[in-house]
Amino acid sequence: MNELTEEVVRSFDGAPQRLKTVTQALVRHLHAFIDEVRLTEAEWTYAIDFLTRTGHITDDKRQEFILLSDVLGASMATIKVNHPAGGTVTESTVFGPFYLPDTPKFANGDDISQGAHGQPCFLSGVIRDEDGDPVPHAAIEVWQADEDGFYDVQYADLDRAQGRGRLVAEQDGRYWFWTVHPEAYPIPTDGPVGELLTATGRHPMRPAHVHFRVAAPGFDTLTTHVFTSDSEYLDSDAVFGVKRSLIADFRRHEPSELTPDGRTVDVPYYTATFDIVLARQLHRPS
Amino acid sequence: MNELTEEVVRSFDGAPQRLKTVTQALVRHLHAFIDEVRLTEAEWTYAIDFLTRTGHITDDKRQEFILLSDVLGASMATIKVNHPAGGTVTESTVFGPFYLPDTPKFANGDDISQGAHGQPCFLSGVIRDEDGDPVPHAAIEVWQADEDGFYDVQYADLDRAQGRGRLVAEQDGRYWFWTVHPEAYPIPTDGPVGELLTATGRHPMRPAHVHFRVAAPGFDTLTTHVFTSDSEYLDSDAVFGVKRSLIADFRRHEPSELTPDGRTVDVPYYTATFDIVLARQLHRPS
Repeated sequence: MNELTEEVVRSFDGAPQRLKTVTQALVRHLHAFIDEVRLTEAEWTYAIDFLTRTGHITDDKRQEFILLSDVLGASMATIKVNHPAGGTVTESTVFGPFYLPDTPKFANGDDISQGAHGQPCFLSGVIRDEDGDPVPHAAIEVWQADEDGFYDVQYADLDRAQGRGRLVAEQDGRYWFWTVHPEAYPIPTDGPVGELLTATGRHPMRPAHVHFRVAAPGFDTLTTHVFTSDSEYLDSDAVFGVKRSLIADFRRHEPSELTPDGRTVDVPYYTATFDIVLARQLHRPS
Repeated sequence: MNELTEEVVRSFDGAPQRLKTVTQALVRHLHAFIDEVRLTEAEWTYAIDFLTRTGHITDDKRQEFILLSDVLGASMATIKVNHPAGGTVTESTVFGPFYLPDTPKFANGDDISQGAHGQPCFLSGVIRDEDGDPVPHAAIEVWQADEDGFYDVQYADLDRAQGRGRLVAEQDGRYWFWTVHPEAYPIPTDGPVGELLTATGRHPMRPAHVHFRVAAPGFDTLTTHVFTSDSEYLDSDAVFGVKRSLIADFRRHEPSELTPDGRTVDVPYYTATFDIVLARQLHRPS
């Protein structure tokens, strides 16, 4: 470590233990990056401006810093540290920039699309613990893009939830709801993150998926997706979020086939099963 | 490098050469930091919120990202890479968050304080090249805080420059102007950067200084300060900007003493000399 880096690291010596660990490591890695690439002053100025614009485009419906973390793989790196792979627990993936708290409540069997465009899709599964026993009454939040690749919050003139909601699994762990079939879509490219992707020759596409967030007392809250097995971009997700275990077959049915909940629909529809295993909480989060 | 980091690094393989170097190094260091500290998801969420608030408090008069770069030593690390120490050239230091382009023009001998509070101070020097020959007509920008530690742009109800301006050195390299004696002051602590300093037990103070930016055709533009030798905090500048070679004696004079430009003032005043050596531009900046 050079003299300057040592001096900056020392300035954090008086911080509380965890904060000291994090800030001193941040300083070492940040300085090592600057030294390694021999960052020019024009690049430093560009970085300041890039971060400023990333902040200015971020509001209560758009989170460009999460998007930046996502495309740099920092979100998945954090998830990897906190949810090591292995075992039977359902794997985690990125949170993404389009989550909203306080979404509409639904009952099992309801249609959460609420007018979002797309082909009808019936999603169902069972929520279990690592021993295979059902977890009763888990709180499930789901959100997804419509067939044009847009989340409800991306429509400036839409003031209600579409393709987004929460429901509670039954006593036996089962959940089921109607939504629209997800499609591959580009992450927003009209901001600094889009500029980064374009400049570096990367595409902005994500494979088709539905977001899940599942919480139950005594279990780690799970943030994940289910991906459609026939989607494009499963091998080149712009945010590195795909895990093989999260890919499910979405089966297409003709209108003549009775739906799993005993209804008929007048257009072709899809069904998919996404069973979920929650990890038992071993210790209180710090 | 683990599999995820490798995948993210590879995604930048198609970028133009310099951008590829910078983004791939950024990804490697960012992931190494996350892995090393085992960043928790709560810390990741805090970081996203911290960056968002840093963006939201930044406007055309306040640059919190520069301040963040400064307190993490990233600004000085960048300067170190681009302006290696050694030789006779005047050393560089941080740009800081309070620079403004297009400030009022002054002639040598003018008073740039324009009503800023503080004790009168006469600053002068000669601008030379590395051979000791005068650099004629260099463009000099200066800016500084008043005796209360505030820059003009920090006064919400002040709509004109105070303690800020530009002038042009004479044919023989000499410049001189009146201003106010600089005082040590805290960097702004009412934003995320202040929160970071408080949480980590660091003070926000900078030793007394006047900012200089000096440009002349054929020379590298110099961004630096002159520090007062009797200031507090020379050993613990919150932004790590002090270099021994930039410290000058500011001498106090009684009103009875004639000023260097042959005037009398009715209060005690200060004089200081700050000679500057510019580096010849060896190649076009990229």
